[in-house]
Amino acid sequence: MKLAVLGAGDVGRSVATLAGDYGHEVVALADSSSAAVDPDGIPVDDAVSRKEGGDGVGTADPEEVFETEYDVLVEATPTTLGDAEPGFGHVTRALEADRHVVLANKGPVAERYDELRALEAESAGSVRFEATVGGAIPVLSTIEDCTPQAVTAVRGVLNGTANFILTRMAAEGLDYEHVLAEAQDLGVAEADPTFDVDGTDAALKFVILANVLADGGFSLEDATVEGIEDVPGSALELAAEDGRTIRLIGEATRDGVRVGPRLVPENGALAVTGTRNIVQIETRHAGSLHSSGRGAGGPETATAVLSDVGRLPDLERDD
Amino acid sequence: MKLAVLGAGDVGRSVATLAGDYGHEVVALADSSSAAVDPDGIPVDDAVSRKEGGDGVGTADPEEVFETEYDVLVEATPTTLGDAEPGFGHVTRALEADRHVVLANKGPVAERYDELRALEAESAGSVRFEATVGGAIPVLSTIEDCTPQAVTAVRGVLNGTANFILTRMAAEGLDYEHVLAEAQDLGVAEADPTFDVDGTDAALKFVILANVLADGGFSLEDATVEGIEDVPGSALELAAEDGRTIRLIGEATRDGVRVGPRLVPENGALAVTGTRNIVQIETRHAGSLHSSGRGAGGPETATAVLSDVGRLPDLERDD
Repeated sequence: MKLAVLGAGDVGRSVATLAGDYGHEVVALADSSSAAVDPDGIPVDDAVSRKEGGDGVGTADPEEVFETEYDVLVEATPTTLGDAEPGFGHVTRALEADRHVVLANKGPVAERYDELRALEAESAGSVRFEATVGGAIPVLSTIEDCTPQAVTAVRGVLNGTANFILTRMAAEGLDYEHVLAEAQDLGVAEADPTFDVDGTDAALKFVILANVLADGGFSLEDATVEGIEDVPGSALELAAEDGRTIRLIGEATRDGVRVGPRLVPENGALAVTGTRNIVQIETRHAGSLHSSGRGAGGPETATAVLSDVGRLPDLERDD
Repeated sequence: MKLAVLGAGDVGRSVATLAGDYGHEVVALADSSSAAVDPDGIPVDDAVSRKEGGDGVGTADPEEVFETEYDVLVEATPTTLGDAEPGFGHVTRALEADRHVVLANKGPVAERYDELRALEAESAGSVRFEATVGGAIPVLSTIEDCTPQAVTAVRGVLNGTANFILTRMAAEGLDYEHVLAEAQDLGVAEADPTFDVDGTDAALKFVILANVLADGGFSLEDATVEGIEDVPGSALELAAEDGRTIRLIGEATRDGVRVGPRLVPENGALAVTGTRNIVQIETRHAGSLHSSGRGAGGPETATAVLSDVGRLPDLERDD
């Protein structure tokens, strides 16, 4: 398939770099102000190097992406809340042109799910978004294969930054501010870590899960969210005396979404360590399925995007 | 899709019972000596009750299954080794009639993989076999989505009976013979538990995995297999003093298959308890994915079969 990739951050660059391994061609790669566009396939390494060297990915106008022939638009621009723009606009244009859309951007899927599905229904293209939840862990495809009706709840740890911080606080007896600074030094937390530590990032993912289970109806404002900024080191010590620890746990059912710090058994499945993520999918007929792995990262998230591309049906093209 | 189900054991009956929930119709259900056949859909509850009451599933000849119009043959007859008959013959007939095949029977996939793929290449039908490895855990679909080339190894616990026995031996300090008897009383081990305790069942699953990774070339005789019958209680006590325990671990790579009892960290991912299974999929770009869940059982395995049916493309039919 021919991929048009919007977004040249870690995820967009990784998708472009790995696409060839999966048998796909990158016809466009755009950042916010420039684009590399070539109907016969862009020179990916060049574009990526330009970007990593501090320039834009190319010399074309990003608008040219929509004038190119592509099969799949990969939306990997930064997640925005509320109206989820400009991501939602990008997705709209692709679907109205009867092209497929694969999202790594959580905004449209968490905040405007019903509209997204309505656009998809009117389009010859399909919408997939495995990469929005759990990075490399195949959460949404597992639910899809079970059929959403057979899944009663999804629970787990879906933010690696918060999990890393709590793991280190427990392991070293250090306080939150200290470990946050360490995480930023390591590149595990961003310069502005707000969405990771206040639970928003995890909440967006569980809102997406609730939308999948209930076929729509949820956005971020429906979620009950508490972050980890106020978890004191003493709470972790107290928990440890009882064979427990604290993790930022989220839960999605058809009735709603909650995210907050919870006590979990120290050696239990939910006590994943470091930046690792885990989901527990509760099913009607097959008990509880647990999947854990790397929830974030350029290549990790790119594998989820490319996995989605592999599940898309062929499109007819007006040549 | 219209399903023709061969095999009326736990798996066959569960597939027939759950098919409706997934939007499919059962046009035939056969055991070794009888069949229920109806092109408009058989009365599933009646057929299942007859079988559970000790009779055959129906009053028709099993041969009539192949004279009925169906889209997917579900092969859920008992696994046989070597020539994998009669399962392999059933699959051959369906593919030669350009119908799809979904297997829960490990025999054809472990023992005659290359021939199976050759028949598939000549057929309009596709072959899927998620249910042969890990029950409800989506192992093969995860590898398929990653693309097999991106997977370097698969490791894990894929036999719940052996895992239950080792878990109980460690927990209670009991010896193997005692716990085996307990497992048989609970229905966790069969009257003839040989394939579970000698490692054959696990080995068949890892052979299937190696065939998927390497695109063929392996059968059971290529695997190095050791079971749990000779693990003494004292070995588990010694392991526990060191924070470890013993599990029947298998590993599949492109180079081969090994199954045997191994020391694993007591609180590590591989030390699943009871009848639970776990797979660790090692990938090139996304680190290690762990999936655990119920590896066996009628409904559990049926969800894997029906998940496969959901991934099949529509067939043309000569009406």
